[in-house]
Amino acid sequence: MRVKLTVAYRGGDFAGWQIQPRQRTVQGVLEDAVAAVGGSAARVTGASRTDAGVHAAGQVCHFEAPVPRPPQVWQRALNALLGDDVRVLAAAEARADFHARFDALGKTYRYHVDRRPVASPFLAAFAWHRPEPLDVQAMRAAAALLLEARVDQRAFATRPDADRTVRPLQACELDEGATLSFTVRGRSFLRFAVRGLVGSLVEVGRGALDPEALVRAASRGDRAATGATAPPHGLCLVGVRYPDR
Amino acid sequence: MRVKLTVAYRGGDFAGWQIQPRQRTVQGVLEDAVAAVGGSAARVTGASRTDAGVHAAGQVCHFEAPVPRPPQVWQRALNALLGDDVRVLAAAEARADFHARFDALGKTYRYHVDRRPVASPFLAAFAWHRPEPLDVQAMRAAAALLLEARVDQRAFATRPDADRTVRPLQACELDEGATLSFTVRGRSFLRFAVRGLVGSLVEVGRGALDPEALVRAASRGDRAATGATAPPHGLCLVGVRYPDR
Repeated sequence: MRVKLTVAYRGGDFAGWQIQPRQRTVQGVLEDAVAAVGGSAARVTGASRTDAGVHAAGQVCHFEAPVPRPPQVWQRALNALLGDDVRVLAAAEARADFHARFDALGKTYRYHVDRRPVASPFLAAFAWHRPEPLDVQAMRAAAALLLEARVDQRAFATRPDADRTVRPLQACELDEGATLSFTVRGRSFLRFAVRGLVGSLVEVGRGALDPEALVRAASRGDRAATGATAPPHGLCLVGVRYPDR
Repeated sequence: MRVKLTVAYRGGDFAGWQIQPRQRTVQGVLEDAVAAVGGSAARVTGASRTDAGVHAAGQVCHFEAPVPRPPQVWQRALNALLGDDVRVLAAAEARADFHARFDALGKTYRYHVDRRPVASPFLAAFAWHRPEPLDVQAMRAAAALLLEARVDQRAFATRPDADRTVRPLQACELDEGATLSFTVRGRSFLRFAVRGLVGSLVEVGRGALDPEALVRAASRGDRAATGATAPPHGLCLVGVRYPDR
């Protein structure tokens, strides 16, 4: 029996999603909890290997249940064992060949920027504090251009190791509230690419980078011509889409 | 020179406002920072002695500056020394006789309840998780009755030690969003009275306490007939009002 979980976590006390020796990781605590409930080890595979410090409101993962139990029983039993910084929001039985990573059509990330003069202590763990004036109109123009442009994600990613690096964006937009938030959606992202994109948009907002120059750099995959990587604590994996079937 | 500060803090890592030996308190870290900047000790007096775990978005305090410095210099120097869970949002020179506690006309608290089936890991530090069905209409009716009623705060407070315990409410209302939030304003509150009031309104929402019975208990100061004290982490001191002068 294959179980699909939707999971939320605060990233601050995790060394990222992926299991690592002697580190607290989201995959690690989930695999420990599945083993404790099911009585034997099972691999928990996530849609996105979020980096250290990155949060998730809607990570999706799957595992092959060591013992058959109704999904709601898995949900309750896992939540009883997990810390309050990681919660199973939903559990469902999946098709036998469902794969959280390979079946994903798109992933949505949201990045929060705290623009207040003094950083809010409530947002400190969840938003990047950038109190200087930002030209939000220019940032929005750059985001709209990028959505239509050829984007070689090597322009934003650090140490890219993938071969297929031209990956179009499915959404790229800014919302202004108490914080400024960026939403980026794409089928997949190179490591650090979302944070490099956000750092570049902030450079546009500061007037240090021109929207057209950013799009040219994006198309060439030119990391040297884009902005610095934004810190992880402002980033959240909001959700993962799958085909309806 | 008397300086008035507006301060925000996450309460989770503090043993409350009031200074205590060998404990991290908000007053303690502020006094340490003032002494480090000014070169000699000064008492920092707050409007509200918030309890352990309670947050503030707009606590107000004052101190007599050991050295004269423009308020903005105090703000920047203190923020450079303080942890990111406490921030000086504003600093101003106050009249020589300004007193953050005695001059306060009213204090506003907001309490957040997370009603989702599974507690959000993002709200865990800031909201009380109560996933069961709550009759928000009954809670709102009780809040409106309490606002008009005689309220002897011994009905809600734990270990009340004050003599004047009948203190009217200036505001008492519920807002429904992703979380349910309670706003309570009054000139002053007995210790734990706001949290006892919230716990009682939740009992009303659960159908375990009748709005009229709650008002009768409030008027008599009958703690045995009201609800349990709500936990501190859902509570935030939102602001303090002073006379305009």
